[in-house]
Amino acid sequence: MPTPEPSVTLVVADLVGIFVFAISGALVAVRKDLDVFGVLVLAGTTGLGGGFLRDVLIGATPPAALADWRYLLVPVAAGLLTFYFHPALGRMERTVTVFDAFGLGLFCVTGALKGLAYGLGPVPAALMGMVTGIGGGMVRDVLASRVPAIFRGELYAIPALAGAFVAVGGARLDLPVLVVAVAGAGLCTTWRLVAIWRHWQAPMPTGPASV
Amino acid sequence: MPTPEPSVTLVVADLVGIFVFAISGALVAVRKDLDVFGVLVLAGTTGLGGGFLRDVLIGATPPAALADWRYLLVPVAAGLLTFYFHPALGRMERTVTVFDAFGLGLFCVTGALKGLAYGLGPVPAALMGMVTGIGGGMVRDVLASRVPAIFRGELYAIPALAGAFVAVGGARLDLPVLVVAVAGAGLCTTWRLVAIWRHWQAPMPTGPASV
Amino acid sequence: MPTPEPSVTLVVADLVGIFVFAISGALVAVRKDLDVFGVLVLAGTTGLGGGFLRDVLIGATPPAALADWRYLLVPVAAGLLTFYFHPALGRMERTVTVFDAFGLGLFCVTGALKGLAYGLGPVPAALMGMVTGIGGGMVRDVLASRVPAIFRGELYAIPALAGAFVAVGGARLDLPVLVVAVAGAGLCTTWRLVAIWRHWQAPMPTGPASV
Repeated sequence: MPTPEPSVTLVVADLVGIFVFAISGALVAVRKDLDVFGVLVLAGTTGLGGGFLRDVLIGATPPAALADWRYLLVPVAAGLLTFYFHPALGRMERTVTVFDAFGLGLFCVTGALKGLAYGLGPVPAALMGMVTGIGGGMVRDVLASRVPAIFRGELYAIPALAGAFVAVGGARLDLPVLVVAVAGAGLCTTWRLVAIWRHWQAPMPTGPASV
Repeated sequence: MPTPEPSVTLVVADLVGIFVFAISGALVAVRKDLDVFGVLVLAGTTGLGGGFLRDVLIGATPPAALADWRYLLVPVAAGLLTFYFHPALGRMERTVTVFDAFGLGLFCVTGALKGLAYGLGPVPAALMGMVTGIGGGMVRDVLASRVPAIFRGELYAIPALAGAFVAVGGARLDLPVLVVAVAGAGLCTTWRLVAIWRHWQAPMPTGPASV
Repeated sequence: MPTPEPSVTLVVADLVGIFVFAISGALVAVRKDLDVFGVLVLAGTTGLGGGFLRDVLIGATPPAALADWRYLLVPVAAGLLTFYFHPALGRMERTVTVFDAFGLGLFCVTGALKGLAYGLGPVPAALMGMVTGIGGGMVRDVLASRVPAIFRGELYAIPALAGAFVAVGGARLDLPVLVVAVAGAGLCTTWRLVAIWRHWQAPMPTGPASV
């Protein structure tokens, strides 16, 4: 099934998103005392894992990243950079987190639109948008043998799902792609940034957990 | 490749199975102190993960659950119910386990029949039946960062495999689908219930493990 | 998309590789105190997981192992053997490691060639070769709830990637398949064996990890 040829702007934005996701993965690897290969794999799975999950689920195989060497080069570069300069990058983590919020906004929109392009209905397409945004970090945490950070109160997935729904709604209304993308990504990124700034947390279950 | 249109009975039974699987996933999330999103994701992956694994492996993408909003709504409902009423649900866990045994029986049969419908031989089709039954719980445990419960002595996968083989054998003999389903699911569910009741355990390796 | 009919030699070599991989998976399961089913699943995922991951990513579903009962029988045999004779097998682990190096060499070549056969470019095809070699062990470690061993200094993935690149290069030069296979697998296996013998380690990040 053909997807529309992505614009240069979109490819660049996509690569920047993959780059910052990959840096967050590589930093987790360094903190877990992994070797250079572990750093590269966590960089790669964090940067590309969400898109891989989405593409495998919707049957868009091989994933786009396997057909375009730039998508493989970017996480390798991010991983090596982190491997050599992780003390400096670790100190810039606040900045990484801000860029990460932009990557999340972008991925939830592109993932949702790709889901629609492959014939999914609105709710599954929005879900695929969320998976694109959060899947890489989940695979990273599984490979680092820890419970995914996004399950522990961080407000991350809900903004991604909201942005994906805005993108799906805009596409259904036949709004121009740029408007859809800016609205969906804008909502997601803004919500995520305010959540970081105000320390908003996702609600936790209340009452004693029975054993 | 077309699969036969499922009957209303089968869809309802399928949704009930997903519902009880999702509750078991959500209860694990509550006990691991995850937030509302973690509860929903563990509900969703436990309820739908087995079918997703099967569909991705046999190439039946996108999985049926992504083409039918009811399949997405049910785990969300189970997750929210557990999020708000987990103390009560936790006390009913015995009941949940019994329903879970019915879900397992159903999933091992539908998974095996779908494997056959996609051209697999009898052994791989039975394996896909087992994967459909146990896959969701395995993904749940990986995301909760613990060794899958079904590897630790619980008699769960063997009944699922047995039920799947009965379903495959019945389908090969061209028996009516209802007979095949009742025989396969009946064997699996009965075996599982007796195993719970009599505390049967899967055998463990004996002798000292060399290090 | 058709892949060329594999020769008898290749099938036998493939089955031997799966067998030794499966034994390494089963030994991990025994050491983690898993039951017989856990032993069989870790044997199966370690032996077949890399190929499954590759086939799902390149869209070659259902994976070859699901279409050929010998590929399912071999890990079951390896798992049962380990279940009953693990003290003896554990003492032979040095031998298992040597055979494992041969399996790795073989898998990185067959994986890379299959990637090319499915239309991937040289870099993604080499990556698929590496995934075929290392994927099973990664899935094994995730299911055993531990950080993959290949991230912790063991020199394992780099030789696999190198062998895969040799195979891709040879195939691009239209060298005979046997020459390509011997060169790629030879480089990978030799490198791996020397790394075991000389205790070579993959480089670790230096400097304090910021928290």
